[in-house]
Amino acid sequence: MTVYEIIDAKKRGAELTPRQIRFFVRAVADGGASDAQIAAFCMAVLLRGMTDEECFLLTEAMAQSGEVPPRPPVGGVIADKHSTGGVSDSTTLILVPVLCSLGVKCAKYSGRGLGHTGGTLDKLESFPGFRVDLTAERFARQIAQIGGAISGQTAHTVPADKRMYVVRDVTATIDSIPLIASSVMSKKLASFADVVLLDVKYGNGAFLPAEADAEELARLMVRIGKRAGRRVCAVVTNMDAPLGDAVGCNLEVREAIAVLGGKKNDLAALSLYLAQKILEEALSLPEAEAKARVRAAVDSGAALAKLEQIVAAQGGDARAVREPERLPLAPNEVTVRAAGSGVCRIAAKKLGEACLLLGGGRQRAEDAVDHTVGILLQKRAGERVREGEPVARVYCRGAADEALERVREAFSYPPEYAPPARIGRYFKAEEV
Amino acid sequence: MTVYEIIDAKKRGAELTPRQIRFFVRAVADGGASDAQIAAFCMAVLLRGMTDEECFLLTEAMAQSGEVPPRPPVGGVIADKHSTGGVSDSTTLILVPVLCSLGVKCAKYSGRGLGHTGGTLDKLESFPGFRVDLTAERFARQIAQIGGAISGQTAHTVPADKRMYVVRDVTATIDSIPLIASSVMSKKLASFADVVLLDVKYGNGAFLPAEADAEELARLMVRIGKRAGRRVCAVVTNMDAPLGDAVGCNLEVREAIAVLGGKKNDLAALSLYLAQKILEEALSLPEAEAKARVRAAVDSGAALAKLEQIVAAQGGDARAVREPERLPLAPNEVTVRAAGSGVCRIAAKKLGEACLLLGGGRQRAEDAVDHTVGILLQKRAGERVREGEPVARVYCRGAADEALERVREAFSYPPEYAPPARIGRYFKAEEV
Repeated sequence: MTVYEIIDAKKRGAELTPRQIRFFVRAVADGGASDAQIAAFCMAVLLRGMTDEECFLLTEAMAQSGEVPPRPPVGGVIADKHSTGGVSDSTTLILVPVLCSLGVKCAKYSGRGLGHTGGTLDKLESFPGFRVDLTAERFARQIAQIGGAISGQTAHTVPADKRMYVVRDVTATIDSIPLIASSVMSKKLASFADVVLLDVKYGNGAFLPAEADAEELARLMVRIGKRAGRRVCAVVTNMDAPLGDAVGCNLEVREAIAVLGGKKNDLAALSLYLAQKILEEALSLPEAEAKARVRAAVDSGAALAKLEQIVAAQGGDARAVREPERLPLAPNEVTVRAAGSGVCRIAAKKLGEACLLLGGGRQRAEDAVDHTVGILLQKRAGERVREGEPVARVYCRGAADEALERVREAFSYPPEYAPPARIGRYFKAEEV
Repeated sequence: MTVYEIIDAKKRGAELTPRQIRFFVRAVADGGASDAQIAAFCMAVLLRGMTDEECFLLTEAMAQSGEVPPRPPVGGVIADKHSTGGVSDSTTLILVPVLCSLGVKCAKYSGRGLGHTGGTLDKLESFPGFRVDLTAERFARQIAQIGGAISGQTAHTVPADKRMYVVRDVTATIDSIPLIASSVMSKKLASFADVVLLDVKYGNGAFLPAEADAEELARLMVRIGKRAGRRVCAVVTNMDAPLGDAVGCNLEVREAIAVLGGKKNDLAALSLYLAQKILEEALSLPEAEAKARVRAAVDSGAALAKLEQIVAAQGGDARAVREPERLPLAPNEVTVRAAGSGVCRIAAKKLGEACLLLGGGRQRAEDAVDHTVGILLQKRAGERVREGEPVARVYCRGAADEALERVREAFSYPPEYAPPARIGRYFKAEEV
């Protein structure tokens, strides 16, 4: 068996055998396959597709390609959540403290931002001193001690996925449903969470523009989870407009704190909905009961106190949780005004790109992120605006002409426009 | 414009613009595209296809990616020939001397063997001292002086094709009709030949198994040539069984010399047919007249004398042309006997692989070739044989069990079998 033959078989549309898939994944992990071979394989999969069985085997082989951390010795249900990447999406910073304060343990593995999407680990580093590289031992200990931890997966976890992702990122092979599913789910199977909730984005600011594709991906991932014996569920959400009002690390952390303090917007609604769904799954609660408990966790201040505890446990300066102005913003503040009158329509991707141009994101994995820059929306998608009204405040350093231009491009003002519902279909294991 | 966007567009099935194609080829030549990106592009082209226009632009851009040698200051028509690769195919060694002896100048660019197919340059190096790396100047001078030269293209010619080929070779992206066409034709457009005859193989021992695919490739290459203002024609030929009776460098050179001395078999028939077609195109001769002249070139000994002259001009020991036993054979000679009775059927690819296993070919471009090993057929495809009769003689060194096994596998003895006609359709520029 050779990598060449496996690429050739997939190219011809064959269903790969379990042996072929395991051989290929091993070759990816141990260097037996070259980057060019990985790229050809991914393009063949993208254009020829994979059966559920192939996709499950690929996911499983990738999950097993590296170390799988042991489950911490704690009782109760351990939860995890994954989003396929959005703009102004700080749901993790909100739902983890909510759930921990309600007795659901959270073993949250997060990632860094890439391209126009933000990353939870970058946002957490807004708290000075915050460690996002916990060892498996420390991660487990913190879950046992305070109920939750948020960290990057270690370098030894799912190495096959890491290598494939780097290749896919530059070869236009990201947007393959089986490849996305196996990448996401391999990381989840290499974890020990009992309940995993997937937030599958579609729309302008997501990897998949079409809702139907997001639903297909959601179903596929739930089926993979089921096949692997995990409780996986998924919700499809719209990412045409940014989720919250802030884009950029410090701005988004400030907003997450505000939501835990009672602020209401789509970010708050989705974060609490996701927390509620995990609570339903984890504690087998009826919908209304779960919803009420989540609300109470916010209203009582318990969730905010839990965030403080998590930040402190991971070495961060937790004073910013009570004093968000400790998270500095870039010195220059530019107001962007409506170029016309109508209904405000906001393209999340353009805003994400603008934040990248400001220095608040990364083009390449090795780029440094400026936490202080970003965009604060003054109008939300669907609001009526008049020409000249402020629609956004941009926090920047030095010349930011290109970024400002990109912010302006993100806004349009059609006479009529109703943003799609933010929260779409929900998929449970029993239903796919 | 980025390489990523170009891959993405092709993946989605878009027709690439001239600017995109030129940008991509430049990036291949100057290193702006990574191997992984080249692989993804090639797989996308293989599965999504290319229009004639895209394929022509790709060919043209590749042809212009490096140095284009100047036409030597000689009168008359300059011809070239290209075969898509076969087993026991030494037509170049026969037709170049035939044509040169008839006044058609030959600027023959050849390649090395790879995998199961043999290469003209390797065979020419059977003549001790033969130089296959002529500079553009020396190549041109030799054509002016003796009417023909056979050489590899220099490292500076079509660098984009060279790089793409290396990637395609390991990523199962060889068998794409537009990629084969652009690879072959870019090298021909980067030459100065007025008439180019393409020998497009199909069957067991060829890159394309199906005759219809070979015809499609032939038509496409003739159209590309026409669009570039060259007289290009093509013949489709069958490569189920080896073309001649010999596989391996020295054996094949001995056989080519024998054909120039009057030996008759499929190799002789095809070589003289190709020479005749080039003569028709080059001198606008009627078929019968061209055929008679080619026959006469062999019968008179003029062609053999011309081969002697070419070998000497390129520094080779030309005595072997008159004394072929000067080309040594490996010390061990093993007779392979028919394992059954019936009609002899021979799989060219298996024989090519057997020669590779003997050390007579190369797995990788950097491998050395043993000129003395090989296989000499004692029976031809379509001949009736009885069990136990000798069907092949294998010349080898040391243990050759795997190679001998492969030779045995190459033979089968069905009760009835008629090999397909060796020479298929002929395509002229006027007709595609």
